[in-house]
Amino acid sequence: MRITKLVGERIKEVPSDASVKSQILLIRAGYIKQVSNGIYTLLPPAQRISKKIQQIIREEMDALDGQEVLFPVVMPREMWDKSGRYSSIGEEMVRFKDRAGRDMLLGMTHEEAAVSTCQNIVKSYDQLPCMIYQIQTKFRDEARPRAGLIRVKEFTMKDAYSFHTSDEDLENYYNKVFEGYNKIFSRVGMKNFISVKSDTGMMGGKYAHEFMLLTDIGEDSIVICDHCGYKANMEVAISKADEKRFADEKLKEVFTGKAKSIEEVSELLKIEKAKTIKAVCYAIVGDTQNTVVAFVRGDREVNEAKLKRVLGKDIAVKDLEGSGLVKGNIGCVGLEGDNIITVFDSSLKGACGMVTGANKEDYHITGVNLERDVEVKDFYDITKVAEGEKCSVCGKPLSVKRGIEIGNIFQLGTKYTKSMGMTVSMPDGSSMNPIMGCYGIGVGRCIASIAEELADEKGLVWPVSVAPWHIYLCPLRNDDVQVAETAEKLYKSLSEKFEVLYDDRKVSAGVKLTDSELMGIPVRVVVSPRSLTQGEAEITLRASGEKIMVKLEKLEEELENLLK
Amino acid sequence: MRITKLVGERIKEVPSDASVKSQILLIRAGYIKQVSNGIYTLLPPAQRISKKIQQIIREEMDALDGQEVLFPVVMPREMWDKSGRYSSIGEEMVRFKDRAGRDMLLGMTHEEAAVSTCQNIVKSYDQLPCMIYQIQTKFRDEARPRAGLIRVKEFTMKDAYSFHTSDEDLENYYNKVFEGYNKIFSRVGMKNFISVKSDTGMMGGKYAHEFMLLTDIGEDSIVICDHCGYKANMEVAISKADEKRFADEKLKEVFTGKAKSIEEVSELLKIEKAKTIKAVCYAIVGDTQNTVVAFVRGDREVNEAKLKRVLGKDIAVKDLEGSGLVKGNIGCVGLEGDNIITVFDSSLKGACGMVTGANKEDYHITGVNLERDVEVKDFYDITKVAEGEKCSVCGKPLSVKRGIEIGNIFQLGTKYTKSMGMTVSMPDGSSMNPIMGCYGIGVGRCIASIAEELADEKGLVWPVSVAPWHIYLCPLRNDDVQVAETAEKLYKSLSEKFEVLYDDRKVSAGVKLTDSELMGIPVRVVVSPRSLTQGEAEITLRASGEKIMVKLEKLEEELENLLK
Repeated sequence: MRITKLVGERIKEVPSDASVKSQILLIRAGYIKQVSNGIYTLLPPAQRISKKIQQIIREEMDALDGQEVLFPVVMPREMWDKSGRYSSIGEEMVRFKDRAGRDMLLGMTHEEAAVSTCQNIVKSYDQLPCMIYQIQTKFRDEARPRAGLIRVKEFTMKDAYSFHTSDEDLENYYNKVFEGYNKIFSRVGMKNFISVKSDTGMMGGKYAHEFMLLTDIGEDSIVICDHCGYKANMEVAISKADEKRFADEKLKEVFTGKAKSIEEVSELLKIEKAKTIKAVCYAIVGDTQNTVVAFVRGDREVNEAKLKRVLGKDIAVKDLEGSGLVKGNIGCVGLEGDNIITVFDSSLKGACGMVTGANKEDYHITGVNLERDVEVKDFYDITKVAEGEKCSVCGKPLSVKRGIEIGNIFQLGTKYTKSMGMTVSMPDGSSMNPIMGCYGIGVGRCIASIAEELADEKGLVWPVSVAPWHIYLCPLRNDDVQVAETAEKLYKSLSEKFEVLYDDRKVSAGVKLTDSELMGIPVRVVVSPRSLTQGEAEITLRASGEKIMVKLEKLEEELENLLK
Repeated sequence: MRITKLVGERIKEVPSDASVKSQILLIRAGYIKQVSNGIYTLLPPAQRISKKIQQIIREEMDALDGQEVLFPVVMPREMWDKSGRYSSIGEEMVRFKDRAGRDMLLGMTHEEAAVSTCQNIVKSYDQLPCMIYQIQTKFRDEARPRAGLIRVKEFTMKDAYSFHTSDEDLENYYNKVFEGYNKIFSRVGMKNFISVKSDTGMMGGKYAHEFMLLTDIGEDSIVICDHCGYKANMEVAISKADEKRFADEKLKEVFTGKAKSIEEVSELLKIEKAKTIKAVCYAIVGDTQNTVVAFVRGDREVNEAKLKRVLGKDIAVKDLEGSGLVKGNIGCVGLEGDNIITVFDSSLKGACGMVTGANKEDYHITGVNLERDVEVKDFYDITKVAEGEKCSVCGKPLSVKRGIEIGNIFQLGTKYTKSMGMTVSMPDGSSMNPIMGCYGIGVGRCIASIAEELADEKGLVWPVSVAPWHIYLCPLRNDDVQVAETAEKLYKSLSEKFEVLYDDRKVSAGVKLTDSELMGIPVRVVVSPRSLTQGEAEITLRASGEKIMVKLEKLEEELENLLK
């Protein structure tokens, strides 16, 4: 490819709305172009990477006996009514009416399509296990797209679905996919990725793992025990309760005035935060009547994912206007109201001497003894794990890191096969709903994650396995006849063995070298009047910066070694 | 691939709603499964074919210096407002509001996206010509999906867009793409395809060609001159006017009673149809006031595509209720009304002695002399070419055939670059809107077209270049230990060199042989107790039916020759 013809321009300026390294560099190096908020066109260099990643994914899926199919993007409502997800999924799913007035949707995921495909085709136990997958465009109307290709509305995804006759068989296959995923992320060149237990979210099912690239710009929090290897997404992470016990006291109402937050109240009363009870209010989605009040120890944070699972319902921010609750003074003692659902965190079990709101403007209550003063049926773990809390497995301190989710795998159980009525006949003549697993990888997010992990202050750095081109052929001073001729010859001969991006522009050496670093092609080959006087070319490795002078006649051999 | 694990079942019954050979066979052989009207899932065998076709298309596009990109499926209205197509395209384009209330659409074609991508990236004449292409899912809300993969709502399409600084450069590139398309359709195994001049339709532009596979089930009519090679889609085809002149007469009103149609009137008056004037009425889309009355000679048919171009507007069937027009007696003499737009076909120019409706219930007028009796400003070619009419180039009789459109290429001009404001700077310092070409191929329709052309009464027939597998390995009586062992060995060894579908089922020889023919894999290899007594396998070529007995030790070599 001659760079003069390449559709993809290199830009000096940092785009004003770009927030993270991969986004800035992918735009600046001419890899992607924004079409609309969260919607991008992949320019030729990015599409070349995308195809290579897709090919690696395909090979690993095929190695797991995966069969590639293509489901439709647009599906009819009826299919999704069967699983109940037409109603249960929110605004992120695009719904529209077709010209005949039928309700249609854009598939965000294809469990329904997978079951509908296999129904009446996979009918007998001896056809199982089987796995089908596709690589296809998905659209999710994300509320907050961000960070370039990391969180977008439209993306290319590999999604796979497996069917099994027993939990053991699923478990066994799931472990193989787990290994396959490790291979995929290694082969595309990621290094600092881990797998963590995660929430099953809108997929349902009992068991899931996420693959996470550890990076400070990640939007997920991951709890890690360096000692025993425990790893979990914050959404499901647990820690050993760090008990704090205070002396029992009598209940007493105290004037706290403008002190409303935990910080203000604990400072005013000169107590540690752990001696207070934090109240956080939520609305239930689709329920305008009730208010959920979550009570946790004052030094802890509510984990909304856990709270959702306790409630079995989706929650949202609550506007307290007209709820009867006194903002800043909500407390668990004597909290009245038919429309209030309280949930208590395990950290409060057995606590005494605590401070809570008095449900009365400007007052709090001290000396709360949960067992004595509040009727609590059950305590639940509804808090986030904090840095330094003890590992529930080994008791050593946990750390919290940030990560980008690069893939996920789910044990779905029979949620979809049961609701959609898919059965297979068993050896004994009975029939059963097959047990499913599903497995996703976002291709565009992989591109961004690789960029995020490997790029340096000079620009992108691509591993050979997915690089858009292998070699950046860079003649300096190609107004010099000998340089120009040598470069043209090298372009022809090297292109027979490698993918070559040829910088045939008549611009300064500085511009060319800077652009080659920005674009991140693994190997740069420079020929210049000076190098040619020695009959040599200069090879520079983008990742390490290592430079090697090579005789032209040895160039191809050297490049073969470097690009192996 | 073991057939016992293949997701894709072979069915004996002809699906009740399937209408054409390719559709029936692709469903019966387990290649596709309908999800909704005009929406299909590609099962593994069809997806394997699709990927091979895509690869052939990619290679030919890359050979034309095409750069692969990926545009979004979902695009914002603003982009399409610039070209005017947000309003001008009808219900076949899906529009919806995103969660923020913005108007979005599903791309049916990507001229706007291509211009928007290249804008501010391709800025100078020396970057041209350039061509970008993508292979991607498209959704068009077709009013009448039909014939399986031939006319669907959702499909995978290769669409390409080129940019040029002069008409000559476009013409030159267009001709190269033309040749590239011929290569593509040959390589995927089609034989009886032709290219024809065609209407530019919703794309706009001045010049277009369609590639057509000739088949009786095609929905397009193609006019062909076997003598000089003239070929055109009926929508734009012309013929040498076959003049019919009758003696001049006086105007006379005659009672024709219930005779309304051309057939009835000509029979009643004992005249040939060519002596009558046919009136056909249309509404203009988006205009409730006016009625278009097209007059053509009674033996000819109105060509709606030509009429649309004359009007520069879209037309639809007209309900004559309340229009003041007398159905069955509409005539061109004294036709009054402010809201009537008349269009006369060239075949009527200079005609006399004609019969037309009297615009009065039960009456016609005879002896019409167009020049004398009707004020006609211009005559236009608005009729369809009929079988046997004379070729406008060489005068020999034309034939009319049916075809499936398998690809199209357009010279778009500056319609999109102008409306969207894309410019490139020229050597003299001026700037211009680049001239565009666009080029489409539907991948799924290719699959169906190949099937339609090559399949026989026994089932599908795939050419080696796109076949889902090369070899159908078919042990008969695999309850026989020697057969089973030999088959397993062959499966392993042949899979190293070829793509093998292994019929490892324990079913009768009849079922296996019938299924192998239904699925259409190019080469079948049978091993049976009988063949093994000779140390042989039986090779059958699906296309020709030719059978070859081969010693097992020579099998691989023979297959290599056959599959070259």
